[in-house]
Amino acid sequence: MEKHMTSGIEDVWQPVPASRSARNTINPIRRIVDRMKITPNPAKEMISLSIGDPTHYGNMLPPVEALEAIIEAVQLPTCHGYAPSFGTLEARRAVAKFWSRSDYILKPEDVILTSGCSHALEMCIDCLADPGDNILLPQPGFSLYTTLCQSLGIETRFYDLLPDDDWKVNITHLESLINDRTRAVLINNPSNPCGAVYPEEHLRKLIEICEKHHLPIIADEIYADMVFSNHKFYFMGILSENVPVLSCGGLSKRFICPGWRVGWIVIHDRHNLFKDTIKPGLADLSSRILGPNSVTQAALTHILFETPDSYYEDILNQLQNNAEYVYRSLLEAPGLQPTMPQGAMYMLIRINPSEFRDIADDKDFFMKLICEESISCLPASVFGIDNFFRIVLSTPMEKTEEACQRIIEFCQRHAKSVS
Amino acid sequence: MEKHMTSGIEDVWQPVPASRSARNTINPIRRIVDRMKITPNPAKEMISLSIGDPTHYGNMLPPVEALEAIIEAVQLPTCHGYAPSFGTLEARRAVAKFWSRSDYILKPEDVILTSGCSHALEMCIDCLADPGDNILLPQPGFSLYTTLCQSLGIETRFYDLLPDDDWKVNITHLESLINDRTRAVLINNPSNPCGAVYPEEHLRKLIEICEKHHLPIIADEIYADMVFSNHKFYFMGILSENVPVLSCGGLSKRFICPGWRVGWIVIHDRHNLFKDTIKPGLADLSSRILGPNSVTQAALTHILFETPDSYYEDILNQLQNNAEYVYRSLLEAPGLQPTMPQGAMYMLIRINPSEFRDIADDKDFFMKLICEESISCLPASVFGIDNFFRIVLSTPMEKTEEACQRIIEFCQRHAKSVS
Ligand SMILES: Cc1ncc(COP(=O)(O)O)c(C=O)c1O
Ligand SMILES: Cc1ncc(COP(=O)(O)O)c(C=O)c1O
Repeated sequence: MEKHMTSGIEDVWQPVPASRSARNTINPIRRIVDRMKITPNPAKEMISLSIGDPTHYGNMLPPVEALEAIIEAVQLPTCHGYAPSFGTLEARRAVAKFWSRSDYILKPEDVILTSGCSHALEMCIDCLADPGDNILLPQPGFSLYTTLCQSLGIETRFYDLLPDDDWKVNITHLESLINDRTRAVLINNPSNPCGAVYPEEHLRKLIEICEKHHLPIIADEIYADMVFSNHKFYFMGILSENVPVLSCGGLSKRFICPGWRVGWIVIHDRHNLFKDTIKPGLADLSSRILGPNSVTQAALTHILFETPDSYYEDILNQLQNNAEYVYRSLLEAPGLQPTMPQGAMYMLIRINPSEFRDIADDKDFFMKLICEESISCLPASVFGIDNFFRIVLSTPMEKTEEACQRIIEFCQRHAKSVS
Repeated sequence: MEKHMTSGIEDVWQPVPASRSARNTINPIRRIVDRMKITPNPAKEMISLSIGDPTHYGNMLPPVEALEAIIEAVQLPTCHGYAPSFGTLEARRAVAKFWSRSDYILKPEDVILTSGCSHALEMCIDCLADPGDNILLPQPGFSLYTTLCQSLGIETRFYDLLPDDDWKVNITHLESLINDRTRAVLINNPSNPCGAVYPEEHLRKLIEICEKHHLPIIADEIYADMVFSNHKFYFMGILSENVPVLSCGGLSKRFICPGWRVGWIVIHDRHNLFKDTIKPGLADLSSRILGPNSVTQAALTHILFETPDSYYEDILNQLQNNAEYVYRSLLEAPGLQPTMPQGAMYMLIRINPSEFRDIADDKDFFMKLICEESISCLPASVFGIDNFFRIVLSTPMEKTEEACQRIIEFCQRHAKSVS
């Protein structure tokens, strides 16, 4: 923009302050990572293991059936107008049908379409809690939860996940955080950044605690069904007899199209505890910005039901192969302790600074790994836990191999007793 | 959803209340219109003049170039991942170039992509004001402004538009509303529901008042350039030397694709009053739900620059022809006083209840018109002014003619002295 300096306006008109909600909308990943000015090693090609965007390397892309569905939909004269702000009936019916079981039938009225799972989470948090209330969040956990709560003036209370028990919830700790301003418990399963998939029994215990304290559950189930062999995914809303559950999901991960911004809230409310309050509240909140892109909504039935099973099997195979490879490889690396994920697209790896000559913590590890090896991961302090780092498992195998090789060499170089 | 009645949970667990923000997210159109249970006349085909969705009848559709651009973009492997939450550089560059003039150059950094103009407005309001602050809004005005402010806990203060002066702003009234909690003035030009297009001089006066009181402007310019012959559109941000302006716009109206949910904020800030505050604040707020659909972002340059001028000329012609036809026709109708719009896609028509035998006000007019004539309009009380109704001007001419015919007969039938 051109700059006209007239009448020394800056002297009389001070900078316009941003609102509290804007000032409190902090992305810890950007806060921590963007402020570090780091230059990768120019001699080595950059390998990104940091961003949860599976399309980055081109080995994972949306199914061709989904692309065809978009191309078909955009040519319909009927899909360019305003849809109802909570989504078209057809799109909501498709989501309801996709997640129904023979013994658990969802209806279109139980579904609200959103602009990605992020928007679903925003609406659920905004609808359940007032400023000054609190919501219980997992730690380590996806950083958007904190971003959203702080932006909305809602207190964050973090319950511990247990690294030595497959990242299950420390239920005693969770329960100790509940007070009379607690409005909901957010549970992320399968989880980012841990890659945990909770067994049925653990989920039932969580539901029990919520029932005891009359707390609804926000279930972030964006990685629903994204589980490795020998693990099984359970929807909280299906397990829960009495606790109402808002399940947040979307196309982003399952159909490898995070840029499309299509998500949903599935309302599980067997006892109508949300019927006249939260359910219309969510519909009202959706009217602030209206629903997701109408073309993608028109394509949704096709995307959900015409994509062959083999597509998703291939994605899961790639993720699991990467997980197994990284796990086996990094067991060899001095100072590191990988935990084998059970699902989702991430692995958390523990760093033992005492085993290194000159690595102080996860941030230090992260910086030196970029500078020396041109590999970007994420220090898990951005997720609220120190001395771990997170890598994504969606890279092509040759990048994964190269990355592991470099990480091992890096650790050996920095290890106290050179092996 | 199935209903399992176990353990009489309703007795012990009360319905879960919705938050204040959800309870305060009220759409006055839905509030007023949906609550009236009205049955159209089964003998007459329904004609909808109520919804601002130009695609409804198929006579206005997005340009084929836009459809081609989507079809091309969706086949690119690079457009399915996460874009920056404020939009891709390419898309922001396209918007900046589209609205630049030879003597006023916008840069991509001045643009934030949003999920429709609604989302742009939400972000601007949220970023400029805290709960308890106030924003000045036009009356009559687009109802979303009230919905958003109330949802965010921001006080609404309404300045009058003058029906007998082409719906210009009553500037004295506007100024009288300003107090120390006023954070911005929202100006909608060309306007919904009035169809006003403000002359340069009027806009300069508005800017002057804002400068005097150090108030930034939120300019809702979604109908930018949508003006009829002999009128000219001016961007507030280009006219304003000293007052920072957030201009909200989007594809919805200009490219007849409101369902696509692509909008933007263009930041006009010649003196850097927003630089370290509002500008990063808006970028941070965008990280709550991330930007609009990535495929449409990838298609944006093509949509904005390959659509021939003739496309938009045809749209404008249809709107203007409809406006002129309706204006001339309804001048004949007893009890009605149409105002000729200067742009946008709407006309406000005054109702003089004293000239009717049995029509109490705009809501009564609206109800009886549906019941007897199967024509839906909107009572302007939903926009904050009584005894007007709004019709949309995007219908095919044959529907417009039929609708005018029926409205005239309706008015004649209800007029005090049958003509
Ligand atoms: C746990 C979790 N929830 C929600 C999201 C956001 O999903 P979306 O892209 O659909 O907004 C992510 C994205 O990484 C995630 O990891
Ligand atoms: C004045 C005005 N502003 C904003 C909007 C919302 O535009 P969008 O569909 O891009 O959110 C409308 C839609 O009717 C409008 O009339």
